[in-house]
Amino acid sequence: MTNQSCGTSKIAGASFSLHPMSDDFIDIITGALKEVDTAKVWMKTDDVTTTVRGKMVHIFDVTSAIFLNAAKSGKHIAFQATYSIGCPGDSQGDVYLVEDDQPANALTCEQINQHIAAKFSLYPLGNDSYMDVIYQQIEAIKEYASVTPAHYSTRLEGDASKIFKGLQTVFEEVVNAGSSHTVMTVSISANSPSHGGDQNE
Amino acid sequence: MTNQSCGTSKIAGASFSLHPMSDDFIDIITGALKEVDTAKVWMKTDDVTTTVRGKMVHIFDVTSAIFLNAAKSGKHIAFQATYSIGCPGDSQGDVYLVEDDQPANALTCEQINQHIAAKFSLYPLGNDSYMDVIYQQIEAIKEYASVTPAHYSTRLEGDASKIFKGLQTVFEEVVNAGSSHTVMTVSISANSPSHGGDQNE
Repeated sequence: MTNQSCGTSKIAGASFSLHPMSDDFIDIITGALKEVDTAKVWMKTDDVTTTVRGKMVHIFDVTSAIFLNAAKSGKHIAFQATYSIGCPGDSQGDVYLVEDDQPANALTCEQINQHIAAKFSLYPLGNDSYMDVIYQQIEAIKEYASVTPAHYSTRLEGDASKIFKGLQTVFEEVVNAGSSHTVMTVSISANSPSHGGDQNE
Repeated sequence: MTNQSCGTSKIAGASFSLHPMSDDFIDIITGALKEVDTAKVWMKTDDVTTTVRGKMVHIFDVTSAIFLNAAKSGKHIAFQATYSIGCPGDSQGDVYLVEDDQPANALTCEQINQHIAAKFSLYPLGNDSYMDVIYQQIEAIKEYASVTPAHYSTRLEGDASKIFKGLQTVFEEVVNAGSSHTVMTVSISANSPSHGGDQNE
């Protein structure tokens, strides 16, 4: 596998799901989706996940905005996403790559203060030195969150907008460093009754 | 990175979370945990995920049993797990590797019929031919589930116990074929009001 530079001209995407732990889960999800401008991405929801595809900047903008708007409900919200770029099985040349680079929801989301706990894992595929890449980015994300080691992932705690910015930055850095196929998984918990202690969440 | 054979003597693990979309989420989670025999694994829950570590057979037994016992509630349940073996950052020599190979919850779980929709992704790390490995296992899992392509994952639909058996089988096959560090992510949805149609879940 060649280590071609992917840059932002390659289509990125995410498969994500939003889980409000509430009887009102449908209203919270549909309410959050209504508040978010998704015009710059391709988006499709099925009964397991929602898929978004387009420029990397818009993938992070739309996924973070949907999470933040749901978390505003104050209910316990879990969010899980797999970000991907360069997947050989992904189709190329999507029309959404002609969009500009202005994130449509950034201004609205900056107003939302939301504390979260998260775990993220980076998977640079087809790369012998992938562990070095991972360790570098765990260092890099310390600028955006309180970081502690966890099994099979790295635990982050702090402000949601700042943490999404950090996740986008480390993902872009791995891509720009030459990883031809990069995957990142993120699990986020907001408004959990377990925050601050070790309990069954 | 050498392609050593990992077999079942290596410690495996999973980081997973269970999300009942219900006001009773705490009771459903704690109820499911109480019904499951976790004596053969190391297990720790924090506010984002639960981590289990031990022999691969027990990792799949315990995670599937916790999901199935929660799904019995009839509530819309989302389950997300990252299975991992051979992570260079993981500690070795855990005492739980001396346990026998008899899955403690298999008999109870076989009684639970639960239809699910799921998406899974395999990540054999540090391996140039990782896409071939992935395509082989997508073929192999067709024996256990109705399989359709999805973005960044493969969609599975069918009986939960059979699908967990398929997931364990393809994960083991990747490890036994020489992948030194293998990750698999799984997202499952049960009792969703969206099953059978394209809606916002």
